[in-house]
Amino acid sequence: MSTSSLARTPRPPYYAVIFTSVRTEGDRGYAETSDRMVELASRQPGFLGVESVRDPGGLGITVSYWESTAAIAAWKAQAEHLLAQQRGQREWYQEYEVRVARVERAYDRPGPAR
Amino acid sequence: MSTSSLARTPRPPYYAVIFTSVRTEGDRGYAETSDRMVELASRQPGFLGVESVRDPGGLGITVSYWESTAAIAAWKAQAEHLLAQQRGQREWYQEYEVRVARVERAYDRPGPAR
Repeated sequence: MSTSSLARTPRPPYYAVIFTSVRTEGDRGYAETSDRMVELASRQPGFLGVESVRDPGGLGITVSYWESTAAIAAWKAQAEHLLAQQRGQREWYQEYEVRVARVERAYDRPGPAR
Repeated sequence: MSTSSLARTPRPPYYAVIFTSVRTEGDRGYAETSDRMVELASRQPGFLGVESVRDPGGLGITVSYWESTAAIAAWKAQAEHLLAQQRGQREWYQEYEVRVARVERAYDRPGPAR
């Protein structure tokens, strides 16, 4: 999963899913599935944006933003995403943590092209 | 700012500061200050942990975890951190966004060494 810029989210409140993980070695189909999950997530109702970074050492942080906890639950239960989650647990991640959080405040320094 | 593993946080609720940014080119003293800020933050009352990743393209995500919004406010106002924030705005970041969120749920798949 990769994104190249900051997510443009609305004024709070909204929700964030903070997914931090350590990858296993080798790709094992991860990159392709990961891109597909971003594509699928972005079509889900209530999706607001995603930011994702992984360093060469294998540590990654992906934060997706959602209108509501109901939207998060629907995405978690999406059929193709469920399969990817199972495969992630078996093959792709040494360890991970998922945190669901309510964004209460936000402030930014916009880029020149914004 | 760099960390090499997942933060070991307590059961929710607690707070997260999600800092996403795009760096300017060149180091300009960033790496040193960044490491120093992690060191200082970890000594602040109410600090629970931090996870940080930056990719070669300059996109970075740092999530720090805190016991309360009061602990976050105290860290934001810490003198040396204030100077670093000002320098960040002037020199280090093309753009950034700071989101303060209340972590309501968390689940994990612990690593083998945990």
